[in-house]
Amino acid sequence: MAPILLNCLGNDRKEYMEETFHVNNPNLDGMEEDILYHFSLGTKTHNLPEMFGDIKFVCVGGSAKRMKAFAQFIHTELNLPGSNDEPKDICEATDRYCMYKVGPVLSMSHGMGVPSISIMLHELIKLLHHAHCRDVVLFRLGTSGGVGLAPGTVVVSEKALDYNFLPQFEQVVLGKVIMRSTELDAGVSRELLQCSKELPNLPAVIGNTMCTNDFYEGQGRLDGALCSFSHAEKLEYLQRAYEAGVRNIEMESTVFAAMCRVCGLKAAVVCVTLLNRFDGDQITSPEDVLVEYQQRPQVLVAHYIKKRLALIALTPP
Amino acid sequence: MAPILLNCLGNDRKEYMEETFHVNNPNLDGMEEDILYHFSLGTKTHNLPEMFGDIKFVCVGGSAKRMKAFAQFIHTELNLPGSNDEPKDICEATDRYCMYKVGPVLSMSHGMGVPSISIMLHELIKLLHHAHCRDVVLFRLGTSGGVGLAPGTVVVSEKALDYNFLPQFEQVVLGKVIMRSTELDAGVSRELLQCSKELPNLPAVIGNTMCTNDFYEGQGRLDGALCSFSHAEKLEYLQRAYEAGVRNIEMESTVFAAMCRVCGLKAAVVCVTLLNRFDGDQITSPEDVLVEYQQRPQVLVAHYIKKRLALIALTPP
Repeated sequence: MAPILLNCLGNDRKEYMEETFHVNNPNLDGMEEDILYHFSLGTKTHNLPEMFGDIKFVCVGGSAKRMKAFAQFIHTELNLPGSNDEPKDICEATDRYCMYKVGPVLSMSHGMGVPSISIMLHELIKLLHHAHCRDVVLFRLGTSGGVGLAPGTVVVSEKALDYNFLPQFEQVVLGKVIMRSTELDAGVSRELLQCSKELPNLPAVIGNTMCTNDFYEGQGRLDGALCSFSHAEKLEYLQRAYEAGVRNIEMESTVFAAMCRVCGLKAAVVCVTLLNRFDGDQITSPEDVLVEYQQRPQVLVAHYIKKRLALIALTPP
Repeated sequence: MAPILLNCLGNDRKEYMEETFHVNNPNLDGMEEDILYHFSLGTKTHNLPEMFGDIKFVCVGGSAKRMKAFAQFIHTELNLPGSNDEPKDICEATDRYCMYKVGPVLSMSHGMGVPSISIMLHELIKLLHHAHCRDVVLFRLGTSGGVGLAPGTVVVSEKALDYNFLPQFEQVVLGKVIMRSTELDAGVSRELLQCSKELPNLPAVIGNTMCTNDFYEGQGRLDGALCSFSHAEKLEYLQRAYEAGVRNIEMESTVFAAMCRVCGLKAAVVCVTLLNRFDGDQITSPEDVLVEYQQRPQVLVAHYIKKRLALIALTPP
């Protein structure tokens, strides 16, 4: 396996070389030790370049079980040696996140919501920096509520939008609010859409993704512990979202897009819709249907990764 | 055990009777079924009054492992029958949260950050409503960064403050921002402080708690993947926080305080400080020291619960 990982540039060398991954913190390189607290890893206690230096694809998702399943799935898909029955959780010393490494792929959970994925991204980006990784593409594989789409449709995000349908992420720094752009990599998104057309049973669209800070009031659900608006007001808000190009709603995409962009990391958000929010709020599909829906982003991104790696095998630099 | 749970009013009957716990959503009672999706529970599939009707104390914390440990600890502390070796996770069908019921105590994890605990609180408050619970007190047991305190100090929050040091929580409802108050129950906080004085090795203070949406830039850490400010600017921000009464910083208290308040639920936030942020950013204490620190909020709240329950036994109504 190792040889194909040494260089995954292929025909797209130029495109990749334009990537300039960097942490945006001059303090880091002067630190005697950097403890990645929420991963239970550190620069003194772990040889990060040896453990992670060959990573080319990082796939993240909210649920620990789902990201373990993805680690097992991608192991099979990449036809890697060894058993994938019980992949080792590299972060097993903590229960904040789980992390599996499968050849050039890192599969990690990030919990729910912007703050939870934000902590993970800070430490992940530092990890990639300390490990001297290059040419890495990040994917968020998630679930979402659909806006005007049939349940089961996969949305590849063009932009992540805030609750005002603006492509920006509001970050507080020492009590001051700064705005960061949330545009995602158009090339990766186009490739993912192309991949979806090569797969059976994988309805996919490119659309905007609205990111909210809660699941109920912020997304216009009528079934939370708190609700002060009518069904008609809910529908009016969803209609305005639809007109702004929103095709799904989730809770992590803005900070994911913003942080990857600031650090020069290519990134894509690939979420399946579990319901059409115009039709309801509760997720009522049978368990087996939901499980199959949740596999779709995994199948799509695995196909992308396999194509990328196959490209290299076919066209060595 | 059961008799003492039927009525935990004791001398404080009047105080408790003033509680008027209520969901703030007229839609709920008209729903044929309410699926608490992130708990894998529902009103049709589970007998919620039978399962949860006797709950009087809900303890929540970020880490699943820690809340399992608390379930085991409170089982011993309340001297309940049966084994506590492997408490049953009521939410085992999902990996979003874990939930243990130990007599009148519910122990739950909520993940990291406001959105994650917000989802949990919506569904928890609905659960308490569907189960016809009354006179419930909620506690958040957490870890935090200290501001001008020795590591290991427990902070019982007077108010939860936002990044501008204001006691408010910004909630987006259908694209509009509304503000909710984040004051906590003064009576419960005072009782908790009194409890701390009755325990050895439990330094505690009442102070304000700042809640941020990330662990790095928002808390003025110099060691994230992104950092655009100086050491001096960090210290100046922490100094201003200190002057506003902030004694610790964490990531969930504002929405916890706000939602409990809106629903008429008594609530307290009890977090231990793992470091003094004036002295650094990284959590470098040895594992055994951190473990002992993390037990302190549990020991304190367990003492409170035992006193409450003992009061009843001593002074039946």
